[in-house]
Amino acid sequence: MKALVVGASGYAGADILRILLRHEKVDSVEATSRAYEGKPVSGLHQNLKGAFDGNFIGFNADKTDADVVFLAIPHGESMQQVPKLLERGIKVVDLSADYRINDQALYERYYVKHTSPNLFKEAVYGLPELFREKIKKARLVANPGCYPTAAILSLAPLGAFKDKIDASKVVVDAKSGTSGAGVKAETFYMHTEVDENLKIYKPVGHRHQPEIEHILKGFIPKISVSFTPTLMPIIRGILSNAHVFGDLSSVDLRSHFEKFYQKEGYVRVVDAACTKNVSHSNFCDISVHYDAEKKRAIIVSAIDNLVKGAGGQAVQNMNLMFGYGESTGIDALPHHP
Amino acid sequence: MKALVVGASGYAGADILRILLRHEKVDSVEATSRAYEGKPVSGLHQNLKGAFDGNFIGFNADKTDADVVFLAIPHGESMQQVPKLLERGIKVVDLSADYRINDQALYERYYVKHTSPNLFKEAVYGLPELFREKIKKARLVANPGCYPTAAILSLAPLGAFKDKIDASKVVVDAKSGTSGAGVKAETFYMHTEVDENLKIYKPVGHRHQPEIEHILKGFIPKISVSFTPTLMPIIRGILSNAHVFGDLSSVDLRSHFEKFYQKEGYVRVVDAACTKNVSHSNFCDISVHYDAEKKRAIIVSAIDNLVKGAGGQAVQNMNLMFGYGESTGIDALPHHP
Amino acid sequence: MKALVVGASGYAGADILRILLRHEKVDSVEATSRAYEGKPVSGLHQNLKGAFDGNFIGFNADKTDADVVFLAIPHGESMQQVPKLLERGIKVVDLSADYRINDQALYERYYVKHTSPNLFKEAVYGLPELFREKIKKARLVANPGCYPTAAILSLAPLGAFKDKIDASKVVVDAKSGTSGAGVKAETFYMHTEVDENLKIYKPVGHRHQPEIEHILKGFIPKISVSFTPTLMPIIRGILSNAHVFGDLSSVDLRSHFEKFYQKEGYVRVVDAACTKNVSHSNFCDISVHYDAEKKRAIIVSAIDNLVKGAGGQAVQNMNLMFGYGESTGIDALPHHP
Amino acid sequence: MKALVVGASGYAGADILRILLRHEKVDSVEATSRAYEGKPVSGLHQNLKGAFDGNFIGFNADKTDADVVFLAIPHGESMQQVPKLLERGIKVVDLSADYRINDQALYERYYVKHTSPNLFKEAVYGLPELFREKIKKARLVANPGCYPTAAILSLAPLGAFKDKIDASKVVVDAKSGTSGAGVKAETFYMHTEVDENLKIYKPVGHRHQPEIEHILKGFIPKISVSFTPTLMPIIRGILSNAHVFGDLSSVDLRSHFEKFYQKEGYVRVVDAACTKNVSHSNFCDISVHYDAEKKRAIIVSAIDNLVKGAGGQAVQNMNLMFGYGESTGIDALPHHP
Repeated sequence: MKALVVGASGYAGADILRILLRHEKVDSVEATSRAYEGKPVSGLHQNLKGAFDGNFIGFNADKTDADVVFLAIPHGESMQQVPKLLERGIKVVDLSADYRINDQALYERYYVKHTSPNLFKEAVYGLPELFREKIKKARLVANPGCYPTAAILSLAPLGAFKDKIDASKVVVDAKSGTSGAGVKAETFYMHTEVDENLKIYKPVGHRHQPEIEHILKGFIPKISVSFTPTLMPIIRGILSNAHVFGDLSSVDLRSHFEKFYQKEGYVRVVDAACTKNVSHSNFCDISVHYDAEKKRAIIVSAIDNLVKGAGGQAVQNMNLMFGYGESTGIDALPHHP
Repeated sequence: MKALVVGASGYAGADILRILLRHEKVDSVEATSRAYEGKPVSGLHQNLKGAFDGNFIGFNADKTDADVVFLAIPHGESMQQVPKLLERGIKVVDLSADYRINDQALYERYYVKHTSPNLFKEAVYGLPELFREKIKKARLVANPGCYPTAAILSLAPLGAFKDKIDASKVVVDAKSGTSGAGVKAETFYMHTEVDENLKIYKPVGHRHQPEIEHILKGFIPKISVSFTPTLMPIIRGILSNAHVFGDLSSVDLRSHFEKFYQKEGYVRVVDAACTKNVSHSNFCDISVHYDAEKKRAIIVSAIDNLVKGAGGQAVQNMNLMFGYGESTGIDALPHHP
Repeated sequence: MKALVVGASGYAGADILRILLRHEKVDSVEATSRAYEGKPVSGLHQNLKGAFDGNFIGFNADKTDADVVFLAIPHGESMQQVPKLLERGIKVVDLSADYRINDQALYERYYVKHTSPNLFKEAVYGLPELFREKIKKARLVANPGCYPTAAILSLAPLGAFKDKIDASKVVVDAKSGTSGAGVKAETFYMHTEVDENLKIYKPVGHRHQPEIEHILKGFIPKISVSFTPTLMPIIRGILSNAHVFGDLSSVDLRSHFEKFYQKEGYVRVVDAACTKNVSHSNFCDISVHYDAEKKRAIIVSAIDNLVKGAGGQAVQNMNLMFGYGESTGIDALPHHP
Repeated sequence: MKALVVGASGYAGADILRILLRHEKVDSVEATSRAYEGKPVSGLHQNLKGAFDGNFIGFNADKTDADVVFLAIPHGESMQQVPKLLERGIKVVDLSADYRINDQALYERYYVKHTSPNLFKEAVYGLPELFREKIKKARLVANPGCYPTAAILSLAPLGAFKDKIDASKVVVDAKSGTSGAGVKAETFYMHTEVDENLKIYKPVGHRHQPEIEHILKGFIPKISVSFTPTLMPIIRGILSNAHVFGDLSSVDLRSHFEKFYQKEGYVRVVDAACTKNVSHSNFCDISVHYDAEKKRAIIVSAIDNLVKGAGGQAVQNMNLMFGYGESTGIDALPHHP
């Protein structure tokens, strides 16, 4: 089959390329970029030298003959391309935010005017652990944001105790590496400014907050998520601490999580989550803690923001949409150290 | 004057030495270590080569002729030495936890049996911004823990709004560098295990939680602090996010913090706190944010855990106890980058 | 087929495990460790949780029924086990130094008394790019050291110009990450001591110097290599700068290297080598520079010390020894970023 | 006295500001910047908040009433300003390359056309350890480059053995942190591209090579330096390995270095140089090694590129030019860890 990665000059695009080039079902991969059209892909992504020696091409939704298109372009742009692609029978995994929140008013409060809200009905939120069956039938999958992937997987299982927890005061204090900011050169993300530094950067009003909340309402209807991210001096990885108040003393939380995810190949319930144990892999590690004195659960989740938080999950979604084995091409194990 | 640093082989001790060697009021400094007695200080702390070429000595509380003793030894050990030192008229800055919590039952719940609780009455918690006048008159100062320094400075000003906030659900999600763990070689803290990694390490029940709570009760009597630390791949620095629910929409929080600390030389209210801006200095930077949608204040504080969180604050306390200028020896500015 | 990794608690062993668990020809993998016998492998190598949930076992060369044994144990110990394994018809990839230098006197000058020098004749140095045909027929492969892998691949092609260079003054100034030191907790390798630090650590007399020299003499008989390593604050990666004096102005060095390695899948000649472009992969990137003013070639090579410098190359050798596709199990691409 | 820092938006300028703000002889400091004129200094250099709350001003060489001017501006621009400043009786420490190489042809080969070569005669190379007496009398000091500071201090003492060494094949393989590249946002220096990476970046033809060579010719007339730098994932620090062939078996090299620098306050001869032991300080640590087998000396030197390699040394020069104590304002000790 033929895959096209649109916006492949970025880091998420790069990781999709890397995966597809070793994917046994994918016969051909092409990469588009407005800024780099005509230039060698391996000039920018030097890791791919020898594995992908073609050039970036331009993108034309009306002409591509790909079977699947990955859109790794900004929100507001995806919504221009998706209708054209679907009309031509091409399946789409959209890594932008455009179809993640299927509530037009909410979307537009945080982003821009939406031009194809009619697709909200059929777009599926691409978190396979929670929406696998819908993804299998989808033409359009909205690949989740990186923070939402970590936060939602850590909180959805608490739906079983939704009446025991104070859903109005859930704090998600998340930490991310620098690759989440993308490839653009900005002083804020220079090595000299980031290294040996912990920086608060968007304590209030981050766009991933409504996404997290919107999806979690399906599990915990009254949830209100207070989300604060911090920038960390690592390249890859998100560690997300969810603090949830409620008397869960009668519950074996860890067992509950283990059961909730027992059939999942990419969620591991561990003693103490850390980003290194999932780095460069599609795993999400979750550790579950309960503070009996404070009646507070702390659910810690760790992902690689570019794999499970972007490109790996995108391919996981493609595998489901096309009926391939779910782990095809993304079964690489993390490393130690 | 003559200063003695007990337990100077550790990182906190090293930083006190570094400061005292350039302190204009200190004529003589000595360093003790059980493990390194007789060995050159600059063999272990190679940064001090040329500045301090003496050896580690042994410690005998009954014989030292120091004017001030800094105890950088484990809890449980300080309480053995302090009574002897005070009896001989020597002023003490204790960096252990032994006199921080002047509530015997609470102390013993988290630490060990206390052998000199009679000193609780006179021991002063050494956070100059909050207890300066008492410190000036003290013979015994309990130097605050690193996390508590950051957390308490960020939350004490909220005492003014204690009736507006939900004091029962204050979350402090703090991040620390590796120097906080001390100099002991353990696999958990090796470079290979820490670098490029974010690790949860004591999500529940950290000993700094009761210390933070105990001191803050003087400002917010009903406060209950839910404290969770994370280990970060930096050497120095703590970033502490305090999440406080409550309708503070009528309050100008930032102005309030600026007024609260307006006479303080070492607390700066900034736009967005980060550890690098205070690293290698005695500053505590605080940024104040309010999430109007969620009715949540986020107070972020940043310190260098070995300076404001240990050795720098210890010398700040010594300066106050001896009537020196408060910034003597600790007025170094942080660096950029 | 059945594989056994001896000494699998270390980092090299961990990487061999990681690879073999995804190797299509390997049906069964076992891991031995003296220190961790009976304990779960994924307790120590938490990256493997879910993929390898067995325990470390003990090792008995007389009883193992493996088809191939990887020895990731110290020099001096391998030589005790190898004869027993070969006698029983088991193929061996030895990651120790015991059979790398087939010159007993030279070996013993740097290591220990050798107890099975009779095997020198048949042991093959496991650098497939240079000794592929011999490896295919070998029962015993001596997997190269990490620094030697980088240095030898960068210098062997200069054999073509051996009369133009000053072979007596070749300087190899190499830099390594901390995983090269292994998993043992030592103060020297703590995060606090390594991070933000560049440290010289064995400027003279490193054991990899004779290994580099010994192998390169097959290409440049008069070569004398002056080798100096430095410790770098990264986990994985070696960058090796080889400085070679000689008038090579009439030579197109880069073309020469490209031709030399044109059929190789794991050596890439690039513009400017760096470790990140090969990290977590089996590639060796080489960049070739010539200083016309100083008549000096600088050949820079980059590898992941645990993959091409240890476990990846070990499996590459196994693939050759068993007639599998050379890249089976080790074709993962590096990441960007 | 009054000091002016021209080009204070950069990292070197920032470090000069930081030092001067705590310098007991400096009554007033001003900071110029073309790009940031009118904006608060502590907006850009947030470390200085509270210590320097003025704005960046414009620069006019004809009007400034400073006693000393530090020029932290690009080469080619300094030479425009210096004559005007000297004419007005103002002393200048120039951090650009414009007066470091007092050989017009050599300068112009590597830089640009020189417009005030007449000043070469009186400009003094500002390496106090080697040229202290001249600096004391100078009106114009050319502050050395960062790599040259490290390399020259490590090689000048070998002048005593200039007939024993092969001066034609001296290799300087140096490693630098990212702050050496300055504050400008470029993809090459982003955290994502630098962290966990070792990158060769200018293996041949770096402009510091002629500077090193030119100064060292005063000590070792026949020296030819082959210089290669590498970029390292640390913020501050240069580690410079000088490899020098020659039979020095009859020499006690370490003693020689200790004697050479015995009166120097900022050069320490140590067992094994590393950057952390000098970081944030004006020290240069040097370790001296000799490879008897290869007849090769390896002299390793470590500096903080922004202190001894830029701003600290600039103030050291100012102190000498004005007759202040040489260590005034720059006697901060490095930290551990």
